[in-house]
Amino acid sequence: MRILVTGAAGMIGRKLCARLAADGAIADRPIASARFVDLAAPAPPAGARFAATCEAIDLAAEAAAELVAVRPDVVFHLAAVVSGEAENNFDKGYAVNLDATRRLFEAIRRESERSGGAYRPRLIYASSIAVFGAPFPETIDDDFLVAPQTSYGAQKAIAELLVADYSRRGVFDGVALRLPTVVVRPGPANRAASGFFSSIIREPLSGREAILPAPETLRFWCASPRAAVGFLLHAAALDLDRLGPRRSLTMPGLSATVGEQIEALRRVGGDAAVRLIRRQSDESSVRIVAGWPGRFDARRAQALGFAAESSFDEIIRVYLEDDHVSAVA
Amino acid sequence: MRILVTGAAGMIGRKLCARLAADGAIADRPIASARFVDLAAPAPPAGARFAATCEAIDLAAEAAAELVAVRPDVVFHLAAVVSGEAENNFDKGYAVNLDATRRLFEAIRRESERSGGAYRPRLIYASSIAVFGAPFPETIDDDFLVAPQTSYGAQKAIAELLVADYSRRGVFDGVALRLPTVVVRPGPANRAASGFFSSIIREPLSGREAILPAPETLRFWCASPRAAVGFLLHAAALDLDRLGPRRSLTMPGLSATVGEQIEALRRVGGDAAVRLIRRQSDESSVRIVAGWPGRFDARRAQALGFAAESSFDEIIRVYLEDDHVSAVA
Repeated sequence: MRILVTGAAGMIGRKLCARLAADGAIADRPIASARFVDLAAPAPPAGARFAATCEAIDLAAEAAAELVAVRPDVVFHLAAVVSGEAENNFDKGYAVNLDATRRLFEAIRRESERSGGAYRPRLIYASSIAVFGAPFPETIDDDFLVAPQTSYGAQKAIAELLVADYSRRGVFDGVALRLPTVVVRPGPANRAASGFFSSIIREPLSGREAILPAPETLRFWCASPRAAVGFLLHAAALDLDRLGPRRSLTMPGLSATVGEQIEALRRVGGDAAVRLIRRQSDESSVRIVAGWPGRFDARRAQALGFAAESSFDEIIRVYLEDDHVSAVA
Repeated sequence: MRILVTGAAGMIGRKLCARLAADGAIADRPIASARFVDLAAPAPPAGARFAATCEAIDLAAEAAAELVAVRPDVVFHLAAVVSGEAENNFDKGYAVNLDATRRLFEAIRRESERSGGAYRPRLIYASSIAVFGAPFPETIDDDFLVAPQTSYGAQKAIAELLVADYSRRGVFDGVALRLPTVVVRPGPANRAASGFFSSIIREPLSGREAILPAPETLRFWCASPRAAVGFLLHAAALDLDRLGPRRSLTMPGLSATVGEQIEALRRVGGDAAVRLIRRQSDESSVRIVAGWPGRFDARRAQALGFAAESSFDEIIRVYLEDDHVSAVA
C-alpha cells in the first residue's frame, strides 16, 4: 500500500506520520512506501520499515499531478491554512484551503481517467467543526445545516462538498472528518484562534504563564491529538460504502468548558499550575471560537466505530504520555 | 440605480429583464441603466425607459472586471449550466457554475477594495433546491443539512457558501435564493432533467405530444416563472440585515405530484390534452429529479415576504396569461 500525506509537517500530520511509521500498516495492510509532504520538508519519522520520502512541496498544479502519478492507495489531505490566518488573509485562505485542495482532487481525477477508472484511492480529508455556525441548538445532530461564520469554515465546507461530489462520481473513495478542537497541542502556538485551549494546559504544566482570552463558561468540543490521528487511521480502513452519499462525518469528542479544563489542570498540576493562567480578554479570537458549537450528537461516526476521550483528565493524561516528556527533554 | 443581470438570455433571465424594463424601477428606486449579458446576446426587452445594454459576454476574468467596473448597484447572477448538462459534463459544470461565479465575486471584491469599501452592491444569486439530497424527512425545514447528490447541486451549494462568506466580509450584500422547480417553462425544452414537469403541461395545451419519464406519484416543489422573477425582485429590495449571517433562503413553492399536475391539466385542457401525455420511463432523468425533495417548510422566506402559488391550477393560469398566447402568436 502506498500512502500520501499532505500537511505532514503540521501537528496532526507529524503524529500521523509517526504512527504510520510505528505501525508499518493500516489495518493489517502493510505500507510499501509513503510520501510525506508539506511547504517545509517534514522530519522523517523514526523507525519506518517502508520507504518514506519527506518533501517540501507547494501544491501547485504540476506538483499535485506528480504526487498522484505514483497512484497512492490512501491520501491523507491535511494541508491547510488555519482559522485565524484564513480570516486575516482572504486570498491565502482560499488559495490553499480551496484551490490547492481542488487541484489535488483534479490530479486524482486525471489519474483515474488515465487508468480507465481502475485507480480510485481512499481519500481522507481533515475538515472541522468550524463548518457550523450559530444559532444552533444546544446539541447538534448529524442532520443539522452547515453554516460557517469564518472563511476557514466556508473553505472547509466547500471542500466537503467536493469530497462528496468526487466520491459520488467514483473519482476517489472519500470521507471528510470534522475534527473537534484538538487539545492539548504540543510545541509553540500556531495561528489558530483556538490556540489558547491548549496553551492554558500546556504552559502551566511546564511552569510557564499562559493567557486566557475567553470566559470560563465558554464550552467547546474537543479531542486529543492521539484521538484525531485515530480518527484518520480508522477512516482509512473503514468500509465507506456504509456512509452512503453523505461523506462528511462529525467526529466524536468531549464537550467541556474552559472552567472544566482549569479544574482538570488543578487535579494534575495543583493550584500552582492554575495560578499561571492569566486572564486577558481578546475580542477577536473569542469571536471566532465562540461561534463554534460546544456539543454534538456524533451518532453516525460513533456507529462507525470512531471514538474519543470522555473526560478532560483523560485528555491531559494523553498529553503527558505523548508530548509532555518530549517537550522538556 | 444601475443593474447587472448575468444569464439574461435564459428563461428566468428574459422574464426578469422584461419585468425590469416594464417597471423601470425596483421598489421605487428608478433604474438609470442596465446591462443584460449572456453567452449569446439577450434580445433587448421592450419598452425600457432606461439605457439597456444587451451583450454577449463569457464570464472570463477580464470580462467580469469590466462588467463590475461601472459599479452596478444590484447584480442578479443567474448564469449557470443546468442540472443535466452539469452531470454529463463535469468540467463545464464546474467551470461555469463555480469558477465563473467566483470570478464575478472576486471582480466585485477588487472593485470594493478600489473604492475603499464604499462600493458594496446587492447580489442576488439564483440557487436551487438541488442543494438537498435524500434521505430527508417528509418536510424539510430551514435548519436541515445541505447534501447535494448531483454536481449541479454541489456547485450551487458551494456558491451559496461563497455568497455567505463574501457577504459576511462586507464585499457585497448577498442572498442566495433556492428556487423551486420552475414550471411551466415556455418555449423549447432545455437540458435540465426537470424539463418534463413543464413539457407535460405546455405541449398538450398546444396540441402536441409530451413524454412523461417519471411515475405519477413523483412529488416535486414548484413555482411559476412569474413567482421566480418575483422572488428575485423581492430580494433586490429587501433589508438583508434581517437575514443575519445565513444568506441562503429556500423559496416558498407548491408541493405537487405529477398526478396532480395531470388532473389540473385535465381541468383546463380536458381529456384530449391529457391523452397527449405519453409515458416512457427514463431512468437517468428520473434518478436526478427523484433525489430532489418534494416538500419544504420555507418559514424564513415566508416571514420575509416571499410568496408563490398555492395550487397547480394557478400555475397553469399564470402560464396561459404570460406565455401561452405569445407561444402560438
